[in-house]
Amino acid sequence: MSSSAKWLNKVKWDEYGLVPVIAQEVGTNDVLMFAWMNRDALEKTIASGEAVYWSRSRKKLWHKGEESGHTQKVHEVRLDCDEDVVLLKVEQVGQIACHTGRHSCFFQKFAGDANDGDWQTVEPVLKNPDTIYK
Amino acid sequence: MSSSAKWLNKVKWDEYGLVPVIAQEVGTNDVLMFAWMNRDALEKTIASGEAVYWSRSRKKLWHKGEESGHTQKVHEVRLDCDEDVVLLKVEQVGQIACHTGRHSCFFQKFAGDANDGDWQTVEPVLKNPDTIYK
Repeated sequence: MSSSAKWLNKVKWDEYGLVPVIAQEVGTNDVLMFAWMNRDALEKTIASGEAVYWSRSRKKLWHKGEESGHTQKVHEVRLDCDEDVVLLKVEQVGQIACHTGRHSCFFQKFAGDANDGDWQTVEPVLKNPDTIYK
Repeated sequence: MSSSAKWLNKVKWDEYGLVPVIAQEVGTNDVLMFAWMNRDALEKTIASGEAVYWSRSRKKLWHKGEESGHTQKVHEVRLDCDEDVVLLKVEQVGQIACHTGRHSCFFQKFAGDANDGDWQTVEPVLKNPDTIYK
């Protein structure tokens, strides 16, 4: 494994050395979450077959599911036309991608109009986060 | 329409006043593209029912499809758990979201392993871009 791999050089890393990543569920095609990767994270994701992100808040590599057990098995990795966004097609272990215990992080839906709208929670909590993160 | 709308304040805009946006096709659930919005773009998207992004390269609002005709009719707008990523569920007019003339921008698929891999084009061009952008 070499961090000088040519395929890693094709990715246009931003000014922080990161690339945005969309995780999509194989089968349902649900968008599960959005995160970031640096070069090391993308390389480890490909090498291990499990999603490894860069946590911008903790400033370290984040093997998704390392605490919760809700890892993501990577079936496919895609790159967009501008080569600056990655799409992962994953199998979501435990069916829970969100730290709130929901299937997807995108559980707030806009309702109303531009003058008088709001975000409403439309997806159920599948598992209490207190029992996920012990 | 007021840019002080409460629902706009709930979005956590980044240091550039932007939020990442994923556009997903209604029905197929295909991820079509990734772009950015500022406050004005999100408000115009909700108000008009068509996707309006912020072009970081051109530094101006970008009504998707304004040149190509490939607009996106917005069926749903979602916000993630951290309130810093937006997901649009759209009907893609012309079935072409990508400026290369493809259905989706995510047409390059990783093949191989971490040592010896590469990105391969796996989706067809549906329409020659020269005939899209006259």
